[in-house]
Amino acid sequence: MPEPVLIQPRIPIKKYLLGSASPRRQQLLGGLDISFEVVKISTEEIYPNDLFPEDVATFLAKKKSDAFRDLREDEVLITADTIVILGEEVLEKPVDFDDAVRMVTELSGNKHTVVTGVCLRSSNNQLVFNEKTDVFFRHLDEDEIRYYISKYKPYDKAGSYGVQEWIGYTSIKRLEGCYYNVMGLPMQSLYKALCEFQ
Amino acid sequence: MPEPVLIQPRIPIKKYLLGSASPRRQQLLGGLDISFEVVKISTEEIYPNDLFPEDVATFLAKKKSDAFRDLREDEVLITADTIVILGEEVLEKPVDFDDAVRMVTELSGNKHTVVTGVCLRSSNNQLVFNEKTDVFFRHLDEDEIRYYISKYKPYDKAGSYGVQEWIGYTSIKRLEGCYYNVMGLPMQSLYKALCEFQ
Repeated sequence: MPEPVLIQPRIPIKKYLLGSASPRRQQLLGGLDISFEVVKISTEEIYPNDLFPEDVATFLAKKKSDAFRDLREDEVLITADTIVILGEEVLEKPVDFDDAVRMVTELSGNKHTVVTGVCLRSSNNQLVFNEKTDVFFRHLDEDEIRYYISKYKPYDKAGSYGVQEWIGYTSIKRLEGCYYNVMGLPMQSLYKALCEFQ
Repeated sequence: MPEPVLIQPRIPIKKYLLGSASPRRQQLLGGLDISFEVVKISTEEIYPNDLFPEDVATFLAKKKSDAFRDLREDEVLITADTIVILGEEVLEKPVDFDDAVRMVTELSGNKHTVVTGVCLRSSNNQLVFNEKTDVFFRHLDEDEIRYYISKYKPYDKAGSYGVQEWIGYTSIKRLEGCYYNVMGLPMQSLYKALCEFQ
């Protein structure tokens, strides 16, 4: 008997476009067993000063989506943005080594919240949502922080850390919520949204 | 100026031996930036009937450790065992397709607890500890369960699922604790234990 063809049973077959340069998002989306194309979107990650911190990620996900061209009938564009909130402060990508040291030093010994905003867009529809995950770091010593930043160069990462790197292995005591949301996409919510999105 | 040599700053340099065939554990331990050798240990994963479910993983981690040869002075052996607890039931590896379907059907829509037991052993010392992580699955339909098991064949995994596979992406609503513990090693606790273990 031939091996049965195993096709994921729920997400409609469409032309999915991922508007993200993040290799982590590309890897995660591939894990849903759908095919998609990575597209380039250029926007400045700037947002109004008076936004609530928890609204920044959805604002930027929608801004990226809106910066892309009109979509054909069978296309669905997926964009996302991830930020780190510590107290009232929004931590985005660090500008240099010292800025990365400053951010990780602030995260050390504290709880922070990772928010990923997602925007799905088709030719006639747009859906925006976000998800929050709480992350608890142990105290890190200065030599550990400098080792991580020197070796892993987390300059493309909100909050200056990658949960799937040495610092995530050695220093995250506890996580509450969706792990993949911290990596860059809230996978379970995204799966459900893609199943239903028209 | 030459690039500085970047060596992880905390874990003592010793000859680490990982007594696990799991590619996931090998990948995770490598993420601590230490070198180690994988060694083969043969034991039957059998435990006394009267053990409390939360003690099974440490019992088996220690049993694996004790089944290995005597250690030289510079060697440290790392063994581990991961189980899934649903209510009072311990879910280990499934015996076949139907058993895997039964397990995932039980996990569907419920919270379960993943316990990983770890044993560190040197020539004159042994440390045993465990860590628990709560995992919340959404409801899965039968075709989703059959798709996952047919395609991913989770026969080497406690509870018949891999958190880092399609089912983890699409179906885990929430996690409370250490994510890597669900993959097979409680990384932050292991890191701290390795830093201090003599």
